[in-house]
Parts: sequence; C-alpha cells; structure tokens
Amino acid sequence: MDRGFLFGDGIYEVFPVYNGLILGLESHLQRLQEGLDAINIVNPYDKKKWTSIINELITYHQENSEQAIYLQVSRGCDDDRKHTHGKLKPTIYMQSSPFKSPTKSDLLKGSAAITRTDIRWSQCDTKTTSLLANIMFAQEAKNHSVEEVILIREGIVTECSSSNLFLVKNNCIYTHPKGPYILPGITREIIIDCAKYCDIKVEEIAFNKESLMVADEVWISSSTREVVPIVCIDDRLINNGKVGETWSVIYDSYQATKSIRV
Amino acid sequence: MDRGFLFGDGIYEVFPVYNGLILGLESHLQRLQEGLDAINIVNPYDKKKWTSIINELITYHQENSEQAIYLQVSRGCDDDRKHTHGKLKPTIYMQSSPFKSPTKSDLLKGSAAITRTDIRWSQCDTKTTSLLANIMFAQEAKNHSVEEVILIREGIVTECSSSNLFLVKNNCIYTHPKGPYILPGITREIIIDCAKYCDIKVEEIAFNKESLMVADEVWISSSTREVVPIVCIDDRLINNGKVGETWSVIYDSYQATKSIRV
Repeated sequence: MDRGFLFGDGIYEVFPVYNGLILGLESHLQRLQEGLDAINIVNPYDKKKWTSIINELITYHQENSEQAIYLQVSRGCDDDRKHTHGKLKPTIYMQSSPFKSPTKSDLLKGSAAITRTDIRWSQCDTKTTSLLANIMFAQEAKNHSVEEVILIREGIVTECSSSNLFLVKNNCIYTHPKGPYILPGITREIIIDCAKYCDIKVEEIAFNKESLMVADEVWISSSTREVVPIVCIDDRLINNGKVGETWSVIYDSYQATKSIRV
Repeated sequence: MDRGFLFGDGIYEVFPVYNGLILGLESHLQRLQEGLDAINIVNPYDKKKWTSIINELITYHQENSEQAIYLQVSRGCDDDRKHTHGKLKPTIYMQSSPFKSPTKSDLLKGSAAITRTDIRWSQCDTKTTSLLANIMFAQEAKNHSVEEVILIREGIVTECSSSNLFLVKNNCIYTHPKGPYILPGITREIIIDCAKYCDIKVEEIAFNKESLMVADEVWISSSTREVVPIVCIDDRLINNGKVGETWSVIYDSYQATKSIRV
C-alpha cells in the first residue's frame, strides 16, 4: 500500500561516494529538498540528519572505495488506494551499491547513442520515481547495445534517459538550459564549473538535432557515469569517431575536482 | 526492490463489480494486455485465469454489493537497482474495495471542476502506475474542493486526472479521440454505445477550452464514478449551472447497461 508502489509517488537521489566521501553532498541534498517541495512531501529530515544517516550507511561498506548511495522518499502508506492523500508518514528506502567509475583508457574508446522523441512529462526537473518513460528508453539503449538514448523534444535536444548532454563546437561547450525539460544534474554543474576553471566557454542554450550531428564532440554526464564521450549517434560518426581534446581536459579537471571537493 | 516501487514500472486496472458481476471484464482485460504489451511485460496469466482469480477475490467480499477490484502488475524484483532489466517475474497486487456508485439525485446537484495545463507524458493511453502527474492533479482538485481537474494540452481539452471528458453542444456529444493523449476509458466506450443506442450523435474529435466553456453540458466518466455532470468550470457556470437532459438520458441508459452487461 505504499504510494511509491501504487503511484510512483516519490523522489530519489543517487550520491556518488569516493574513498568514503560524498561528492556534491550539499547539492544532492538541496535537489532532494526541491523535489520533495515540488510534490508536497515534507522532508522527514534536515540536511544534518541526512548527512549522518548517509555517512553511517557508507561505513557499513568500507570495503568498497567507490559506492553509489541510493535514497528514495515516497509519500508513504495509506489505508486505502485513492489518488488523493491526507497527511502520511514518508517511507525512506536507502541502499549502497558498489560502483566503479570508468577509466580514462576505457572512455577513450568512445561510446554510441541513439536518438528518440522525448515523450516524457513537462516537469523533468523533478527527480521522481515515476520513471517509466526513462526506463523504457534505458531498455531501448540496452537492446541496441548503446550507452544512451538522446531525447529530442520538438526538434530540440534536451538530455538523455538518465544523463545530461553536452556538445562542443568551435571550442565552446553547449548544453540545454535548466528548466522543466531537463534534470538539473549535479555532475552537469560540476562540469560547467570545471570548464570555467579551464577557461573554456560554456553556453547553456537549446540546440537542435542537426547541431548535435555536426558537433566536434558530444558527451553525456551523470553522477555514476561521470562524463562519457559519445562518438557515434544513430550509426553516424561524430568527429570521425574520435574522442575530442576538450573532453580530455574536462575529464581530467573532473577527476581533480573529485579529490578536492570530497 | 520491486520495480513498481523503484520506477513506477507497472500497469494497473480497476474493475467495477455490481452484485458480484464485473462490468466490462473483457474490455478491462484487453486493456491490461495492451498496457503490458506497451511496456514489454509478459502477461503472467491468460484472460481465463485472470477471470478466475478476480472472481475468487470478489467472493471473499460478498457482503459488498458493489466492489472495485484493483489489479496491478509490476515488472517484478531485481537483484540490484538499475534502469535496465533482464527477465523478471512480474509482481501481482490485487485488492477489493467497497464502493458506492453515485445516485441520480446526488448527481443532479452537479459538480465543479478546474482546468490545468496537461503536463503528462505523450503515452497517456498506457495505464501505468507512474502516476505522479495524475495524482498531483487529483490532489489539486481535492484542495480546491472540486470533482476533477480538466487537462488542456496546447489549447486542446484532452481528459481529466482520472476520467474521460464529454461535452454536449446542439444535441451532439463530443469527446477527444483515442490516441496517445487520453486513456481509452472502458466507461467512455460504454457511454458512446449508450449514445448510439439512444440515437444521440457522437463525434470523437478534439475541441478547445473555449468550446468547453460554452458547452450545453459537460460530463466526466470513469469506471467507479460512472458519468458525472460538471456544471461549473473555473468558477464559471456551464449551462447556467443546470444538469442537462442529455446527461439524464445517458445516465439512465448506462444504469440499464449495467444490469444487462454484467
């Protein structure tokens, strides 16, 4: 009878952990708060309490130098199934999974992606567990043996099934602006910071599929995948299938940031 | 670890039961099949087996002359949380709730609704448990003490948070055509059949909000609400707040159908 199960009525976060320390903790907890606010669930804990709980979970798995902490808050259990709800006690589910961040030599091989029409709702900035559209796209990527599905909404490239997207053209990095059509990725923010630190221009503006296909470089980003270069989209090579220089600079900067920030 | 809880990765149906008999059983089981097909879950049972299980559940609650049988099939439990999936055993959840179909004298008082922008995904014909948008609208209706939220997508009236919508103008009934923007309601189909039986013209065509506001009658329909006349939208009266004659004819025909079909 949990509304997470009956209605997908919940919010989640994934915290990447390196050497026992959480990257982007404050940003993830802030986004959790914004997600809960967006769907009117009262956050059961403050940031201090969440930090303490997450850190406790991390210590149970110290054998894993890298962990992904999954945290879900659903609206809770009701007495009967009805679309509306009264005051309920939120359900909290957390788990730690080992993960292995990809190595630079692996990433330099380049990954592939396919494009699909973005059929998701118009509130993609809320990190909800009502994820059916996203998981259907992820499954399609798996079935096509590609890394990701790139989503196109009315001609505009938004993001991917579970990652943000960047392109590089003439030494400038482009990514879709924040708003209702993309998830405001924490890794996306870190990458933008890295670019600024490396004196590479970043433009948060919308671009279409044609721009994507003639980009010098295309990357995707997420907390557990970090930043992955895409060299083939819909069976067409990007930049002749070569991973770009800008990606390499940003990748190195991201790795440095990991050790500084955590 | 059920994907119903983690991803809203499931399909559901609600079967209305009158005097121990299910209205629209075949249609509901057909829609269940189509929903499972749409998201690639193998239907765990055939129609005969489902019928047997549902009828068994009904007998446990014979004290209730009217029941709503809720049936949910999620993709099942996986070993770890990942967006993609391999072959899993679907999880089945069912429950019977007593319900009381509204009386004609109650319905003749007329109900109110509000309009909102339809922010849902573009596959609303799949009856999925990823229902966050729908339940947020339902909660908004509750907070405004109205029966429903009427959804408008790019100027076009689609349906409501958990019901289909009809309008009557110059003795013709209009409702949004089937397709990706509405759920193909079983009650919607029965109403269309009733209208044909009563020699009332039905047009399944899209109409805008302006047409809605100047309609002679507006109704909503669902399996448990049946057909409810709406006489006030966004605080503006429809047909001077009076329930219309066509509604009365269709309501009576629907009640007759209930006793014939089940």
